[in-house]
Amino acid sequence: MKILVINAGSSSLKYQLYNMTDESVLASGRVERIGMDSSIVTHEPAGKPEVRSVSEILEHTTAVRRVMDMLTDPEVGVLASINEIDAVGHRIVHGGETFRESALVTPEVKLEIRNLFDLAPLHNPAHMMGIQAVEAVLTGVPQAVVFDTAFHQTMPQSSYLYPIPMVLYKRHKIRRYGFHGTSHAYVSDKAAKVLGKPLESLKLVSCHIGNGASCTAVLEGKSYDTSMGMTPLEGLMMGTRSGDLDPAIVPYTMNKEDLTLSEVNSMLNKHSGLMAISGLSSDMREITDAMKEGDSHAQLAFDMYTYRVRKYIGAYAAAMNGIDTLVFTAGVGENSAVLRETVCSGLTFLGLELDPELNAQRSKEARIISTPDSRVSVLVVPTNEELIIARDTFKLVSAEA
Amino acid sequence: MKILVINAGSSSLKYQLYNMTDESVLASGRVERIGMDSSIVTHEPAGKPEVRSVSEILEHTTAVRRVMDMLTDPEVGVLASINEIDAVGHRIVHGGETFRESALVTPEVKLEIRNLFDLAPLHNPAHMMGIQAVEAVLTGVPQAVVFDTAFHQTMPQSSYLYPIPMVLYKRHKIRRYGFHGTSHAYVSDKAAKVLGKPLESLKLVSCHIGNGASCTAVLEGKSYDTSMGMTPLEGLMMGTRSGDLDPAIVPYTMNKEDLTLSEVNSMLNKHSGLMAISGLSSDMREITDAMKEGDSHAQLAFDMYTYRVRKYIGAYAAAMNGIDTLVFTAGVGENSAVLRETVCSGLTFLGLELDPELNAQRSKEARIISTPDSRVSVLVVPTNEELIIARDTFKLVSAEA
Repeated sequence: MKILVINAGSSSLKYQLYNMTDESVLASGRVERIGMDSSIVTHEPAGKPEVRSVSEILEHTTAVRRVMDMLTDPEVGVLASINEIDAVGHRIVHGGETFRESALVTPEVKLEIRNLFDLAPLHNPAHMMGIQAVEAVLTGVPQAVVFDTAFHQTMPQSSYLYPIPMVLYKRHKIRRYGFHGTSHAYVSDKAAKVLGKPLESLKLVSCHIGNGASCTAVLEGKSYDTSMGMTPLEGLMMGTRSGDLDPAIVPYTMNKEDLTLSEVNSMLNKHSGLMAISGLSSDMREITDAMKEGDSHAQLAFDMYTYRVRKYIGAYAAAMNGIDTLVFTAGVGENSAVLRETVCSGLTFLGLELDPELNAQRSKEARIISTPDSRVSVLVVPTNEELIIARDTFKLVSAEA
Repeated sequence: MKILVINAGSSSLKYQLYNMTDESVLASGRVERIGMDSSIVTHEPAGKPEVRSVSEILEHTTAVRRVMDMLTDPEVGVLASINEIDAVGHRIVHGGETFRESALVTPEVKLEIRNLFDLAPLHNPAHMMGIQAVEAVLTGVPQAVVFDTAFHQTMPQSSYLYPIPMVLYKRHKIRRYGFHGTSHAYVSDKAAKVLGKPLESLKLVSCHIGNGASCTAVLEGKSYDTSMGMTPLEGLMMGTRSGDLDPAIVPYTMNKEDLTLSEVNSMLNKHSGLMAISGLSSDMREITDAMKEGDSHAQLAFDMYTYRVRKYIGAYAAAMNGIDTLVFTAGVGENSAVLRETVCSGLTFLGLELDPELNAQRSKEARIISTPDSRVSVLVVPTNEELIIARDTFKLVSAEA
């Protein structure tokens, strides 16, 4: 079975084509600048160099058509015909309280995703455009939707409710949803396998640290609490997002700087985090490089960032009355040994002991980086959200058949 | 030496008169509804029943005059003349970055407090009215100011800066200040004395849990981090304050409910917390009473409240790479055994073991409530912010003399 995984944004569309027989990626790529006059398609067939083409792509249906052209191109294609695509899986950021797991696309499912536009105005409408574009181009091909929020639907009320008037929850669904769920679920499961223990027996904290970042407390295999909230703004300091701050700062800043609602949102989501403190970059690699050169702003940004990760790990240890497994994943979590070392250096009180050599090694495999005697097993587990979407889609389509 | 301690609000003024020879309270009381037509003065001389009088008190100078009338009244007074008052100490909520410790009132100090009006618009202007009223009524008597924020001025940058554009710190002084500092300082010091250990040797978390609530990580005797932020809104869930939430909820709610800046501030400060979730009360005693009757909303409010305290303790343990001392203080922290028990029941992973009998005992004395084997000493330490203000005032005036 061949499954196409799509992550549609408002002006972009990323794709991976999987051969589910061996879970290999046949091709991947992205369409950028959709809606602008010179859109760019970048296509990378497995084992061959990537190709780029520039053309006018004004909306998502055309984008999907161009992807099909690439996939079936005599030179760079990997399919004889688009009929070889058996199913399509979409990443959907927000599943609200409706979706506790992945689902096949039906008219009802599309309606529910629409009902969540308000909660994820930047993401869900774009995902819907992706679904409709696939419907138009690959008529009759089954589609599935996989939600960033679904894994966190197991959180208890005391984790997901905010201490604000209950009418805001009832009327506007204001609560903690959490994100990166696909990743947290995958790496938790993988960590348990690497340890050779049932996931249900673990008190695990997973740290998904990329440009966006979140921590999740995984208790008995379920999400018990997570640092992102109603939106992906809450929680850890990120590349350009603030994460947690005194809520009173929002109206205070709006008043002092005469900002609109959308301007303050933009400031907190796009101009804060590592970027704001370092004045240099939102990219942890550039931050750590600059630290080595003695850049004090970069050092401060790094200190704040790692301090906040460490506090969340402590908070979730307290939430679960203990922690036996700590997992790092995503771009920064997988690749920055100095970040992992700095975070863990303040957690020896938990009986956590990192092995400096194992931590320094680079690998694409899931692996343990703590010492054999460490009371907390620390792992690096490369995440793979696209593969999970492909697997979920495969499962749903197979069950249906 | 006799010292009058004053806590002036915009429409209220609380006072305690101390005899510093033995730190006894000679009288205490409060003026309420200043500025309204029927203001109430409640005066309580030591060892005698309280007296109340209703009269028109339109501003703070008249309020101070009425307090002087009470203190020198032939029946209920405790002084022959107001000349017996040697000094006055004021509680000041916000000392910004200017005040790292208490200070004698001078024209420069008054100017600095004025410069901080923007950061504490509800408090500092009222405190200034109190200072000026005392100047008018007790001409020439030295006054001191004691700041809620001063103890926290030792926090490192990585604790006090927010990951938002640095210009907001430089231009508007937006940073974490923390509050309840007088209380955190006092109970930390007292806890060390009870334990018979140098405060500098402890990794201590103090939980000041009253109607307002905050946790502080005290490392080597200094505030290392604290849960309240630029304002007292951040951090723990409180009686009517939300504490931490996704910052994106603020603009989202303003948009959905068409709220102004002051309305959203009011919602988060006055209509959130225990009150919002229980739908019943902001008072923990009423919450725990209702829980016993099986009120599920009260139970939820309690669960959320205690969960958030526990997470902060865990976060600060991680911040300091360990914790050996945990202190509960203020109205709820001192009196609610079930709150302490619930918070601590999830912290046994730290080697913390509460003694249920010691925890259940009621006392006005500072005391240990953990077992002798507990790796974390847990204490209840009654706080006394007025006494610390009196002591600081005494010290400053004595040094001056």
